[in-house]
Amino acid sequence: MTQTTLTTGELMALVTEILQGGGLSQLHAEALGRVIVAGERDHCKSHGVYRLEGCLRTIKAGKVAPDAEPVLADADGAILRVDAKGGFSNAAFELGAPALGKRARELGMAALVINDCVHFAALWPEIETLTDMGLAALAMCPSYATVAPTGGNAPLMGTNPFAFGWPRKGTPPYVFDFATSVAARGEIELHRRAGDPLPEGWALDKDGAPTTDPEAALAGAMLPFGAHKGSAISTMIELLAGVMIGDLTSPEALDLLGTTTLAPKHGELILAFDPERFAAGRGDPLARAETLFEAIAGQGARLPSQRRFAARAETAQNGIVLSGDEMALLEKLRDKGLEAVELA
Amino acid sequence: MTQTTLTTGELMALVTEILQGGGLSQLHAEALGRVIVAGERDHCKSHGVYRLEGCLRTIKAGKVAPDAEPVLADADGAILRVDAKGGFSNAAFELGAPALGKRARELGMAALVINDCVHFAALWPEIETLTDMGLAALAMCPSYATVAPTGGNAPLMGTNPFAFGWPRKGTPPYVFDFATSVAARGEIELHRRAGDPLPEGWALDKDGAPTTDPEAALAGAMLPFGAHKGSAISTMIELLAGVMIGDLTSPEALDLLGTTTLAPKHGELILAFDPERFAAGRGDPLARAETLFEAIAGQGARLPSQRRFAARAETAQNGIVLSGDEMALLEKLRDKGLEAVELA
Repeated sequence: MTQTTLTTGELMALVTEILQGGGLSQLHAEALGRVIVAGERDHCKSHGVYRLEGCLRTIKAGKVAPDAEPVLADADGAILRVDAKGGFSNAAFELGAPALGKRARELGMAALVINDCVHFAALWPEIETLTDMGLAALAMCPSYATVAPTGGNAPLMGTNPFAFGWPRKGTPPYVFDFATSVAARGEIELHRRAGDPLPEGWALDKDGAPTTDPEAALAGAMLPFGAHKGSAISTMIELLAGVMIGDLTSPEALDLLGTTTLAPKHGELILAFDPERFAAGRGDPLARAETLFEAIAGQGARLPSQRRFAARAETAQNGIVLSGDEMALLEKLRDKGLEAVELA
Repeated sequence: MTQTTLTTGELMALVTEILQGGGLSQLHAEALGRVIVAGERDHCKSHGVYRLEGCLRTIKAGKVAPDAEPVLADADGAILRVDAKGGFSNAAFELGAPALGKRARELGMAALVINDCVHFAALWPEIETLTDMGLAALAMCPSYATVAPTGGNAPLMGTNPFAFGWPRKGTPPYVFDFATSVAARGEIELHRRAGDPLPEGWALDKDGAPTTDPEAALAGAMLPFGAHKGSAISTMIELLAGVMIGDLTSPEALDLLGTTTLAPKHGELILAFDPERFAAGRGDPLARAETLFEAIAGQGARLPSQRRFAARAETAQNGIVLSGDEMALLEKLRDKGLEAVELA
């Protein structure tokens, strides 16, 4: 099948049509549409149109409120809080982000807590919203219990993403966004389909023994990145972005749904920092950061997200290119709506 | 030589006598004494009396202000700031910690910036000061450029410690405190002395090639933990706790002194969170955290710092046991003062 080239606007229209056809309100369809289009724009396929089926499946299963109206509470000191009312997190973040930015400017630092949201997206679009305001930002959330703590033998923590951004003038921000598991669950699935063994240290089987068999790993547990250090950071995310914000931990999120095939429901914590305010006149933080980035790149080391930003520049020139299979999927989802997806 | 058993009070008296003999003011001698005694109390030998020589060497080299009076500025929104005036960081932290705790209670979250301090201690004593107040806390600082970014070939980042704590009722807190390098520099030194090769992935030689030779590693660069993910976290620490707070990055700290044998001068960033305030009535965060800790320990996985806390309990029973060599060192430092140490 031939490839199809779309503008970001054309893809946005198609994706929102699909999501509204699946029952999402315009608010949610557009908020999800923006992050899915951003994924395709950045050649970040794992967060692109591929995610639509999971969204529709979660709607079909009744595990997300498709027309939830998120509510922003008055600021409580440095804490902003959005109750997502069981809807997808994206619209909740978009509601809270301007207030978070404003409060971070007022106090030097502020936190956005999102509660009771259904989460399916990467964190980097949220981080970039804040770096676009000239703020540094840190974001984290639990997920599903699929990762064993180092020294343990069974799934407990989630793949718990940890993301950070730093604003840069005239060039895309410094951004990282990674799972605190050694690999994403999707990577294990890719090894399974290819019939390839996993690298050592990725996973345990259902009895808690190390395994390189993808099938056994999927029935067992993934392992944290960086051994006990990554395990500690993953635990910190359960504490700060689960327990502390009064929302579900990864084991609680899995208990609630009983499956990892639907988008999980939990909360999210985003911290924003005003670099100028922290620097308090002791040098220009944005200029000094460039010296550090130049030293990193000058060694031939890659800054994170550079592949994404290169893809973004290419998309701006050439549009978004979808494969025949991808277009066929989109057309099927558009034409059949929720009937196009099956519950596991 | 025989072992000597001291109470923590006896060791504190001896250590502060040594530090005052080396020229530190009472304020600094006591602040440093507390963390050195805490290191011995917790059998954390790398941060115990062994550190005294480095402190005295830094004083002798004129690279720390021995009688600096740290100054706490008025709170600027969520930001507390202590100017350490070139003195050791410990007294600066002790000055700022109560104000940080108070502000975190008022706003839900606050930051303590320490500027212009000389740093030699672990971060966990500071984290525990905050968990003792019922707060969660995150602390980080640069160090010396000794670690290459992943994909790079030369020292740039520091071993940049990252520490976190969560308060627990009736039991020591959840605390981790680790270098973001794959190993501490001291561990490489221990391999060198023992004539043992390093594990793969720890270090590069001076030409940027992977090495397992400790000697070549010490002349080259260490590597971050967890490959590109640890490298990204270490970069984040340079940004937040160096550039953002208007203080030195690890390469700048090394440029300033030209050696890694003295305690580095830079800044530090500590964040404090009020769990009750963040939870806002959505469950009891301290009780829910215990469920998570039980699940981790129930798998046979170790919570971080448990060895330290077990040692602390043992010390409370049996006192601090020092080897003959350690007592000889202490007596030499007490009797000879700065003459007992040599500059490299």
